[in-house]
Amino acid sequence: VESAAQAVREGEKETGRLEAFSDGVFAIAMTLLALDLQVPHVDPSASRWALAEALARQWPSYIAFITSFFTVLIMWVNHHTMFKMVRRVNIRVLFANGFLLMLTTAVPFTTALVSTYYRTPGAKVACAVYTGTFVLVSVAYNWIWFSLVNHRELLKSDASERTIEKLSKNYWLGIPAYLIATAIAFVDVRASIGLCSALWIFWAATAREV
Amino acid sequence: VESAAQAVREGEKETGRLEAFSDGVFAIAMTLLALDLQVPHVDPSASRWALAEALARQWPSYIAFITSFFTVLIMWVNHHTMFKMVRRVNIRVLFANGFLLMLTTAVPFTTALVSTYYRTPGAKVACAVYTGTFVLVSVAYNWIWFSLVNHRELLKSDASERTIEKLSKNYWLGIPAYLIATAIAFVDVRASIGLCSALWIFWAATAREV
Amino acid sequence: VESAAQAVREGEKETGRLEAFSDGVFAIAMTLLALDLQVPHVDPSASRWALAEALARQWPSYIAFITSFFTVLIMWVNHHTMFKMVRRVNIRVLFANGFLLMLTTAVPFTTALVSTYYRTPGAKVACAVYTGTFVLVSVAYNWIWFSLVNHRELLKSDASERTIEKLSKNYWLGIPAYLIATAIAFVDVRASIGLCSALWIFWAATAREV
Amino acid sequence: VESAAQAVREGEKETGRLEAFSDGVFAIAMTLLALDLQVPHVDPSASRWALAEALARQWPSYIAFITSFFTVLIMWVNHHTMFKMVRRVNIRVLFANGFLLMLTTAVPFTTALVSTYYRTPGAKVACAVYTGTFVLVSVAYNWIWFSLVNHRELLKSDASERTIEKLSKNYWLGIPAYLIATAIAFVDVRASIGLCSALWIFWAATAREV
Repeated sequence: VESAAQAVREGEKETGRLEAFSDGVFAIAMTLLALDLQVPHVDPSASRWALAEALARQWPSYIAFITSFFTVLIMWVNHHTMFKMVRRVNIRVLFANGFLLMLTTAVPFTTALVSTYYRTPGAKVACAVYTGTFVLVSVAYNWIWFSLVNHRELLKSDASERTIEKLSKNYWLGIPAYLIATAIAFVDVRASIGLCSALWIFWAATAREV
Repeated sequence: VESAAQAVREGEKETGRLEAFSDGVFAIAMTLLALDLQVPHVDPSASRWALAEALARQWPSYIAFITSFFTVLIMWVNHHTMFKMVRRVNIRVLFANGFLLMLTTAVPFTTALVSTYYRTPGAKVACAVYTGTFVLVSVAYNWIWFSLVNHRELLKSDASERTIEKLSKNYWLGIPAYLIATAIAFVDVRASIGLCSALWIFWAATAREV
Repeated sequence: VESAAQAVREGEKETGRLEAFSDGVFAIAMTLLALDLQVPHVDPSASRWALAEALARQWPSYIAFITSFFTVLIMWVNHHTMFKMVRRVNIRVLFANGFLLMLTTAVPFTTALVSTYYRTPGAKVACAVYTGTFVLVSVAYNWIWFSLVNHRELLKSDASERTIEKLSKNYWLGIPAYLIATAIAFVDVRASIGLCSALWIFWAATAREV
Repeated sequence: VESAAQAVREGEKETGRLEAFSDGVFAIAMTLLALDLQVPHVDPSASRWALAEALARQWPSYIAFITSFFTVLIMWVNHHTMFKMVRRVNIRVLFANGFLLMLTTAVPFTTALVSTYYRTPGAKVACAVYTGTFVLVSVAYNWIWFSLVNHRELLKSDASERTIEKLSKNYWLGIPAYLIATAIAFVDVRASIGLCSALWIFWAATAREV
């Protein structure tokens, strides 16, 4: 019995280190988003309001920063919700999680792409890359989740069948939803980004607990 | 009883992960402030003192770096003081905290804005953006705090009414104080930044414990 | 007995702090890799597909990013596997670990080198620097490992002779393997990077547990 | 008795959070040092060895990177050694520690200064700024240490008088030593940096435990 209890503790310690590591990547990715907020270049001898105008012209950067920041925040909350149910991880979960983290670190890049090309003909391509990355993020969550569910011993014993099924459905929904958002990108950039935001709000609302 | 004790432990573990995550963002934001310290460009064949002069001319960067570093440090201390009283968090606290973290990551940007435009006509606008961000920071702290106070079960049971009331007043004060600093920015940049610093010293002095 | 138990606990706490610190460096290095993903410069008036083409032309950056990300991820897993066996560390292990972390932080630099010069005559040199860094990484792992093995009291008492021998052989293999990959870099860049990736997959497969 | 034990635990938890926060800043500062390693610009049509030569010409960057990396690593070890003796912290220790962290985040800047101007007449000024920062680092360590020693209740009760005195002397030595290194910078840059490195080796050797 004691050794079983210790195995559980060891497993939880391992999971704890994976969570802390993932949290680190999420936190850094969120902070690096702010590097997209660039100090505008204004002629030093220009009038006082020139800087205000230059800052105002950068509004797509601010929208992109805020949207991506809360997106990654909700990804973090979801990650958290998922790992609350995990007792220990295997190498497959570890790599699926690595794939998710890799995509997370790329979000500042795709965000900068959208804010740079928002007012050019390249906007649709930039937006499709942005939403397409979230299709992959959805794939990553599903990959992690199904690796866990298929080795039920990786989950805590108090995880109910109903919760598992509900989460499975929620995660699975992400793939078609972001595929649609990516398709819409080529028609209407604003609708596509709006759908993305709506989806994140949906995830946030359904992830009732922290 | 045991399950109640476990629920408390679980809640504290959750809060612990939120605190660790927030600490990560604070630490990264503080370190990124140092990216505003730029190596000046000096003609390699210039005299030895040309570099010293170029470095000296960058003094607004140093002041901005030091001020913002200690500002974020005190924000971290305040965050710490607040979360010492918290037993668990709900989704609303989580998002209010996310809003605070988002503003924190933007501080290196607003700092760079002030140090770049300090000696130009744009100084007043830059300073108003800098102090205006702290109005929002104050709003974020109040949002977190009142979300906690309105769901008293989120606070630890040993949190006394008097402490709660005192903290409520302290946080609330922040909003008008930074609004005034923002208004002063359009009259006198130095007075505005001086007021900001004075306020941080006030928070530091009143946050007696770590 | 109690003080022995406390000494073990103290030792584990120390190791825990070293692990957390190392995890931080790994996480930041992995995230900084994404800074190599640059927003391409496209004439704002160019056609919609100009951006898609410019993004496609950057493919060596994406390959380099993905390869290096998973490389550092597996380095982290290996680090983890090793330190799971460690009870406490001495100053020599600390510096060997510092050497490993230093090389880890340099991976974004060597990665950028490869992706920048992949299609130029400099590719072979860039690739040799990239793989050469992994020779040093292998040296670092061996240095840490043999410092631990030579002071067996630093390892946990349940570390079996067989596991130790097997790990010693695995780590030792890394040095000639990466030396060969570095030599191949001067003949065929793709073969060299392919060998590197194959090696990381080998490490990943042999590091069965997290 | 129980509440005393709990107070100790609380205090240790607080110290733990301060340590984790400081570790984060140390880890990020160490990783940012690698941003000074720049991919050199070489004409894409140049011969294969042009890149090798360009990389070789950057040697001051590599020396600076390695020196500063191990410097910050030893600062981290020292920080660790010090806080192992601490039971809880007060606001003064917190700010002294903040001052130390601020200087730490500035090390990538002073390092870049030295590596950029190493082969120009500005080298002496750059080197004096680099070593001068370590004078301040020494002041910070002494400020933390004497704040702790003057409120002996902040230290753990098993901290012996002899250890305290020895550490006090070690820390105090840092200030004149770095002042001398700074003075030497104006005579001989290499001697100054050599003295700096020698000092870090001395600290490392005297910090026997982790």
